[in-house]
Order: sequence, then C-alpha cells, then structure tokens
Amino acid sequence: MKKLNTSPLSGMQELLPTEQAVFDQLKQNISDVYHHYGFLNIETPIIERTDILLAKAGGDTEKQIYMVSKTAESADSADQALRFDHTVPLARYVVEHNNDLAFPFQVTQINRNFRGERAQRGRFREFYQCDADIVGREKLPIAYDAKVIACIYDALRTFNLPKMLIRISNRKVLAGFLAALELSDKTAEISNIIDHAEKVPVEKSAADLLALGLNQDQVDKITSFMFTSGSYAEVEAALSDILGPRMSAVAEGLAELKEVSDILEAKGTGNFTIDFMIIRGLDYYTGTVFETMLEDYREIGSIASGGRYENLASNFTDMKFPGVGGSIGLTRLFFVLREYDLINLATEKPVDYVVLPITTNEYETAFELADKLRAEGKSVDIDLSERKLSDKFNRAGKIADFAIVIGNDEVISQKFTAKNLQTGETVEL
Amino acid sequence: MKKLNTSPLSGMQELLPTEQAVFDQLKQNISDVYHHYGFLNIETPIIERTDILLAKAGGDTEKQIYMVSKTAESADSADQALRFDHTVPLARYVVEHNNDLAFPFQVTQINRNFRGERAQRGRFREFYQCDADIVGREKLPIAYDAKVIACIYDALRTFNLPKMLIRISNRKVLAGFLAALELSDKTAEISNIIDHAEKVPVEKSAADLLALGLNQDQVDKITSFMFTSGSYAEVEAALSDILGPRMSAVAEGLAELKEVSDILEAKGTGNFTIDFMIIRGLDYYTGTVFETMLEDYREIGSIASGGRYENLASNFTDMKFPGVGGSIGLTRLFFVLREYDLINLATEKPVDYVVLPITTNEYETAFELADKLRAEGKSVDIDLSERKLSDKFNRAGKIADFAIVIGNDEVISQKFTAKNLQTGETVEL
Repeated sequence: MKKLNTSPLSGMQELLPTEQAVFDQLKQNISDVYHHYGFLNIETPIIERTDILLAKAGGDTEKQIYMVSKTAESADSADQALRFDHTVPLARYVVEHNNDLAFPFQVTQINRNFRGERAQRGRFREFYQCDADIVGREKLPIAYDAKVIACIYDALRTFNLPKMLIRISNRKVLAGFLAALELSDKTAEISNIIDHAEKVPVEKSAADLLALGLNQDQVDKITSFMFTSGSYAEVEAALSDILGPRMSAVAEGLAELKEVSDILEAKGTGNFTIDFMIIRGLDYYTGTVFETMLEDYREIGSIASGGRYENLASNFTDMKFPGVGGSIGLTRLFFVLREYDLINLATEKPVDYVVLPITTNEYETAFELADKLRAEGKSVDIDLSERKLSDKFNRAGKIADFAIVIGNDEVISQKFTAKNLQTGETVEL
Repeated sequence: MKKLNTSPLSGMQELLPTEQAVFDQLKQNISDVYHHYGFLNIETPIIERTDILLAKAGGDTEKQIYMVSKTAESADSADQALRFDHTVPLARYVVEHNNDLAFPFQVTQINRNFRGERAQRGRFREFYQCDADIVGREKLPIAYDAKVIACIYDALRTFNLPKMLIRISNRKVLAGFLAALELSDKTAEISNIIDHAEKVPVEKSAADLLALGLNQDQVDKITSFMFTSGSYAEVEAALSDILGPRMSAVAEGLAELKEVSDILEAKGTGNFTIDFMIIRGLDYYTGTVFETMLEDYREIGSIASGGRYENLASNFTDMKFPGVGGSIGLTRLFFVLREYDLINLATEKPVDYVVLPITTNEYETAFELADKLRAEGKSVDIDLSERKLSDKFNRAGKIADFAIVIGNDEVISQKFTAKNLQTGETVEL
C-alpha cells in the first residue's frame, strides 16, 4: 500500500532506465559534436539572484519563474530563483569572468532549466536545453553565425531524423524592408503577424495587416516578403522585384545573409534555405535568426533555433559582448520524437553482459571475467541474487544484450559462452 | 561599469572553462566505471513534493531545505522543494515504477542536490553527488554490499590519488556489541561518541562515555572496540578477547563482514580494512557501512561513503526494498583536491586544435580540414575573428594544444603543420 503520492510533479520528465539510456545517448551526441566544434563547456548554478534573472524580464518570464527560499534564516538573504534559460546566466558569467576568458568565447551549456508554465501535455517545467554560443568582445564577425548553424545542424544529424531543413533569416532585412515601406513604427506588430503566418491562412495575415492601418500596397508587399524563400540569389531577386529603387534599405541585412549562406555552402552544410517568415518571436535577436524543422513533419515546429544578439549583457554592464547562439530543446524534442515514433527506443539495452554465477563457488571467476570485459569498455552486471536461474535470465533480458552462465565447468575450463537474450544464439567469448 | 552584482550566489561552484573540463572529466570517469559495473542511469526531477522530501526528515534537513514557489498561481499548487539528496527521490522512483524495474535494480544518479547550509569555505549549497545503489525487492544478498564498495573504489582509482584506504564496519556488530554490554538503550549516544572519536583525544571519548553513566569496564571495552581495525581474522580475534563468552551477540554482524571481506579479497579490490570506528552518523544504515580516505591526508576525512539500508522506502509504501549504496560527493571532493594540490588542472587543454585561416580565401580549406579532424574525434575550433595573427595565437594558447595556420600555400599544397602551443614544436599533419 502506498502511503504518499509517489508520482513525479506534473510537467517533470521522469524516464525508465531503458528510456533514459536513449535520452542520455542523444544528449551525449549533442555534447560530442559541440565539443568537436571547439565549444567549451561551463555550468552555472541552477539558483541565481532574482534581480539578475529579471533584469530584462517582461511578459511571461516573471510569471513563470520559480522563486526559491530557505525555511530557516541565513546570512545570505538575497532573493533567489531558478534560472529559466542559459542565456541570462551566460551573460552574468561572461561579465563576471571576462578577464579570464579567451574571446571569441565559444561556450556550451547542456543542462536543465525551469519554467512554471501551465501544465499541459508535451510542455515541461523542468527541461534540458543544449546551448552553443559564441561571444565576442566589442565585435564578432558574421562568419560565426554560420559556424553556430553548422554546428547545431551537425549535432541534430546524429539523431538520424528524416529530412531536416534549416530556415534562415536576418532581422536587419526585415527592419530595412519595413523602413523602405515607412512602417518602422509598426515593426513589433508586423513581426508578430509574420511570426504567426505559418499557422493561419494568408487571408487572415492580410486582414491583420490591414487592421493595423496599412494600405493595400503595403499589405501586398509584406505578404510577398514573408512568403519569400530560396537560395540567396533567389531571395535577392525577389526582394528587388518588391522594393525596386528602395532596395538599398535591405543592403546590410542581405550582405550578412549572403555571407552566412556562402559559408554554409562552402562548408557543405546540408539542406538550408533563406526564408523571411522566420522571426523567432519578439526575442532579443538583432541579425541572423534560424530555425530547423523536419520537412515531412512541419506541424512539430522548430526543433532547434537561435540567432545573433548584438549585446549579450547590456543589463549587467557597459561592456559590449555581441554574440550568436543556438539551442536544442532536448526534453521537448525527445517527447515529440517519441510521439511521432521517430526514435528507436528498443535499439540497444543499457548493459552489455549479465554474468550469472550458479553458486558462490563461481564468484571469483565471475569477478575476473567481468573485470576483463569492463577493461574492454563493456558494461557488465553480475547477478548475485539467490534466485532461480530462470528468474535471473528474466531480469537479464530486461536490461542486457547477453547473459553468461558460470558453473563449475566454466571455472575449470575458463571458457565462457555468451547467450544473446533476444535471439537465443550463443557465442564463445 | 557593472550595473548589478554578477558573482554567483555564495555556496555555488562556478568554474572557468579549463577547470570545468577537468571537473567534467572526473565526473565522466565515475560515470564510466558505474556504467561498466552495469549500473543503470536515471534522472529524477530536481523539484519534488515537500511531503515526499520531508517524510522522514528531522534534524537539519528541514532547516536546510530550499522551498520553491511560483510567482503566479497555477493549477498544481502542491508544496514543492529542491531535493537535498538522491536517496529520497530514488525511494519515490522505486515505489512509483517498481512494476517496470528489474530487481535487483542497479541504479546510478550523478547530478546536483541542494542544501541551504550556512555559508562557509568548502561547503556547497549546490553540489554534485555521484550515487550508485543496488535495490532488491524483499531481499538482497550481502554480496551486493561488496559489489558497491568495489565499484566506488574503482571509480575513485581513476582519479590517480595517493594511497586510498576503504574502512568498513557493520552496524549489526556495534548493535550486538552494545547488547552484550547491556547498553542497547544508549546506542544513539554511544554511536555519536564513536563517530567523533577520530577528531578528539581518547581521554575525551572516555570521559564522554563515563558521563553517560557507563562503568569503567564498559568504557574500556568500548574504547578497545572503537580502536579495533585490521583484517577480518584480526578483528574477530580482538572482539573475542573483549567479549569472551558473549561473542555470539556479534555473530550476525561478523558473518556479514566476513562475506564482504572475502568477496573484496576474491575480487582483488585494493586497500581495505575493517574498522569499528566507522559509524556514518546517525543515518539510516542498518548493516554494512564504509568510508574511503586518503591515508596520507586523513584530515580531509571521507571522500566516498555508503552502506546498507534494510528498507529504502518505508515512508512511502508497505513493500520492502532493501538496498545498499555509496556516493562520491564530487563538488566537495574537487574543491578539497585542488586545495591539497592533488589534482592536475593544467594537464590538457579542452580543445585539441585551433585552425587559423589568414583570410576568408582560406575558409573553405579550413572547414574541410576541421571536419576531417572532427571525424577523428578531435575538438577543433576555427578562429574567424578579424584580428592580428599574434592575438589569435594568444587566444589559441589559452584553450588549445595546437594551432594550425592556413594561408594560400596550405590551400594549394593541402599540407598542414600543427604548432604545439606549449613547446613551439611543429608537426606535419
């Protein structure tokens, strides 16, 4: 009989060991690729000062934050809360340690963040984000934007997902475009309409734009703009058609897009397209923005995204730290990939061998054999429980690929046979 | 100018990237050994229900717990707090998922826990614990105690520390010994005196025992007991000298100690001794208890410890889950090893190569070379910043072992030279 409710709190991911092994492998894959790209790992505390976390807050952040307090009084009585992303702690870290860091600072954080969102299926309150950022001091060349995109894409490639598409835009193109249309004062509202255009009929977007007080020509130009996508040459031509003599307004943004596009092509980074529907919300991005999606599963939405921010730590310091970063929201992604059956949970068992000594007389031999296999990098469990062999085999089948029974014969012969727990086949070791 | 205090909260570990790389390597070493021993990784949420965390609390736990609350109202209004160890969440996990687990359940948790202790040097409020536990259903043979000890010891061996000593005792021996002396009603007080005996002169321990109302003979026997250590045969002989005809009172505990000792010897696990001074506080341990120390640095205290608990989840369920576990407190250990200069922070840089293309004309060659090296498992950074080559070398020296300059010659010849950033030596790739 249970005495207390032992389910995890709602909104928390809690996996069985075999599921956890798959999750861990995906996390390790991401970490390996980031590491191969030269990103340095850091870990910031999960608990931060509230004034740091909320320095730039607004909107939902403040409502969703988890406040922390101790039951007893303590000397350190600062208001504390759980971090809700990696970017704010990174900004604090860069300011605090800037004299000890080598800029451009290529940094990764793969860890859990916390948001007290309203509970709903597929939304998590505690979730892994796998961030890769490059932070400069004073300036950071646009080439780094391409590097972050290529790295995130290569990390996702290890998942063996169906056709991925990277969609890239640049906030400066949008800003220049709206300036050319003399609509700069409506940037926030128009960005919001473009940001949601993918989920509604085009007539709805057009009506929303008209409702803002735009004339029909402006509405037509913006709807043409937001459906523009393709290679750099294609989108440049399309923009030129729309803007005509006012094309110079988007020159800076286009030059950045061209550089990112050229580098991704030189690097041979797979399937990417320039797509002006990509906005990335009303976030702090100032230049390049990107999202990644599965072409055949558009309804999943973006599985990794990021962009360029001109000033990472403006709330904490007068020093200037431009940066570019991207993130894979692994907890949500793992959940979605399981829903869509896009991930193979039954691939391999977490343990390679379970060794089954029949009596205590075979323990020494079992230990020796296990240590030998461990030295080869294998995961080896030894079942020392006093149960029937059939029960032991039953347990082994749940966690391991092979079982090795050790009786008196094996002790004498020092020859061992591994039984494949799926197929029943045996192999000599 | 700083606008806010950007230091991490006191009691939180925050490392520079090169330090973090060493910390990460130690954590990976522990994880690898646990995995090789067949332990399955799980991750429980950092936030738990307060009633779960405090079901068995008492003493300092309640005072040190971090309570969590959301600023806005939400449907899920259960009292929430941050976990202070891995054991309570493990108990909840085992009860919740027991139908899906294969028992004996060998499980590891390597993650952060939280305690709002009073701030002091070397004490952390957010800290990694690396736990390995084996949980049975209804029963669990004593042989598993030896397995946990051997595994923790092998994990620590990867640190290349000076002489380690595992000290093993058994609570049943102590209980039997006190029963033989008709002192069972003073078990808690006497345990506490033995637990602290290492840090005070023997006269102080004796005086404290007398102050409990013990007679001189009882005091002498207990001080003899607590200074008893050695091989199994030695401690058995010593106990027999002290207890004489009442020796049967410690028979059960001794039998368990003998089994653990025999297995560790059969397994060839290094330097261990039986030592009755080991108590492990007033924790929930019921049989085997162990600590690990560095023989030449006894003042550091235990660097890994654990023991047997007869009933993991008695606060949550009527089902019986006996277990045995051990833990390495990695954050504190890392701090102490640095203090004692027992860990080499300058071993290797986190990045293998920094590639330095001289102009954008060399980018494509740089990307190709980097991808080739990455495919070999190397960590490769490409410096795309528009700075002087000397500045780039300066940055590379802080994070990487080698630099590879790529100019027009290298593009044409496709031959590359790596320069060792420590020694200045060059090698052809």
